[in-house]
Amino acid sequence: MARYKLTIEYDGAGFVGWQRQANGVSIQESLEGAIERFCGARVQCAAAGRTDAGVHALGQVVHIDLERPRELETIRDAINFHLKPNPIAVLSAEPVAEDFHARFSARGRVYRYRVVNRRAPLALERGRAWLVQVPLDVAAMEAGAAHLIGRHDFSSFRAAECQAPSPVKTLDSISFARAGDEIAVEFRARSFLHHQVRNIMGTLKLVGEGKWSAEDVKRALEARDRRVAGPTAPPDGLYLVEVLY
Amino acid sequence: MARYKLTIEYDGAGFVGWQRQANGVSIQESLEGAIERFCGARVQCAAAGRTDAGVHALGQVVHIDLERPRELETIRDAINFHLKPNPIAVLSAEPVAEDFHARFSARGRVYRYRVVNRRAPLALERGRAWLVQVPLDVAAMEAGAAHLIGRHDFSSFRAAECQAPSPVKTLDSISFARAGDEIAVEFRARSFLHHQVRNIMGTLKLVGEGKWSAEDVKRALEARDRRVAGPTAPPDGLYLVEVLY
Repeated sequence: MARYKLTIEYDGAGFVGWQRQANGVSIQESLEGAIERFCGARVQCAAAGRTDAGVHALGQVVHIDLERPRELETIRDAINFHLKPNPIAVLSAEPVAEDFHARFSARGRVYRYRVVNRRAPLALERGRAWLVQVPLDVAAMEAGAAHLIGRHDFSSFRAAECQAPSPVKTLDSISFARAGDEIAVEFRARSFLHHQVRNIMGTLKLVGEGKWSAEDVKRALEARDRRVAGPTAPPDGLYLVEVLY
Repeated sequence: MARYKLTIEYDGAGFVGWQRQANGVSIQESLEGAIERFCGARVQCAAAGRTDAGVHALGQVVHIDLERPRELETIRDAINFHLKPNPIAVLSAEPVAEDFHARFSARGRVYRYRVVNRRAPLALERGRAWLVQVPLDVAAMEAGAAHLIGRHDFSSFRAAECQAPSPVKTLDSISFARAGDEIAVEFRARSFLHHQVRNIMGTLKLVGEGKWSAEDVKRALEARDRRVAGPTAPPDGLYLVEVLY
């Protein structure tokens, strides 16, 4: 057997998310189907991040085992050929050691959340960003976000269905970049709880529009109660940008 | 009558272009229909740039005359309401003098052409960029582009159907920005010939992949013959970014 690391880009709109599900088409099943059409054998893919329905990836990582070694360019191009017309692309294929695991070997993950802050609806970025029509104070959002950096019990920002053994995570950084009417927020951590980034974004939006103070974010964190924090931001604005090993 | 300047964003995929045509839906007819549903009267829109099928706009400008003055926010929001579900959005409405003309008052236009230079197909940027799968030498493309700056007879880069009275135009600048696998090329001029940017991009691609030298661009320009320059680049990568008055 030969193990390969694949770096994948996809438009999450129209998929039920990364993981196979009975109620619709997943990225996983589309990718596994393409790999099977390429190499003739059933292959299982493990991914670094199990993105939700509507969430995008610029650099998702999966690993696969092939029965015999293949040229890296052949793997990439052949899977891409069989992926058509799905909006999923294999950016690269790399050989990795037998004990490499896309999910368990990952030392860090980078997610980006894109907000378009304007009154007008989205034309070009529809499904690719969260349209927030009330003016947001980015400096206030940054002050609120600062309370979340470090090692904390993130129960207030954790989805009920989250399967992580512990709600304690270390958030390395949350950085903001404003360009025109777009606010891009980048999150770095070893790993994230289910809906953690979207729940934080829904909370920071409350701070940005002045309904909450930055201090309220700290209070919500300390409550360790999902009902105390803000709503879950939509999946449209979320991108898995990079996985670090 | 009250004249207003509207700044418009749209995803050009799925439209036959700005201008009304018998063979499909245009941006113009979608916009005029929305304005009619808003104000109850038939209104004609003149646009700064008559973008082709598949070409996008971040800042197209049109002017309209309304029978009576309206609140600017009402104009924007009401037209956007009636534009649904088209991927067209009015970003702003501003009052302008009676003699303002979106097309004839424009002093400059900025177009951006986005290339994604990689082997893998496009997932997130499908329809939004030109995928060029052979490696491009951006420095060589810049050297080729330098020959086109200034006032020239651009017959070699002009579509056969171009209705401009003269093939002579002044190209103020062509600037390149590389970020990851994306190359964004920005064009500034008072006005452009039909297909001028796409024909220049198709030619600069020949330079980027090493089939042409930078000097060949000069030779093509001087030939004043469309058959001598490169092919027309696809509409997907082209954006009307801004119109200057």
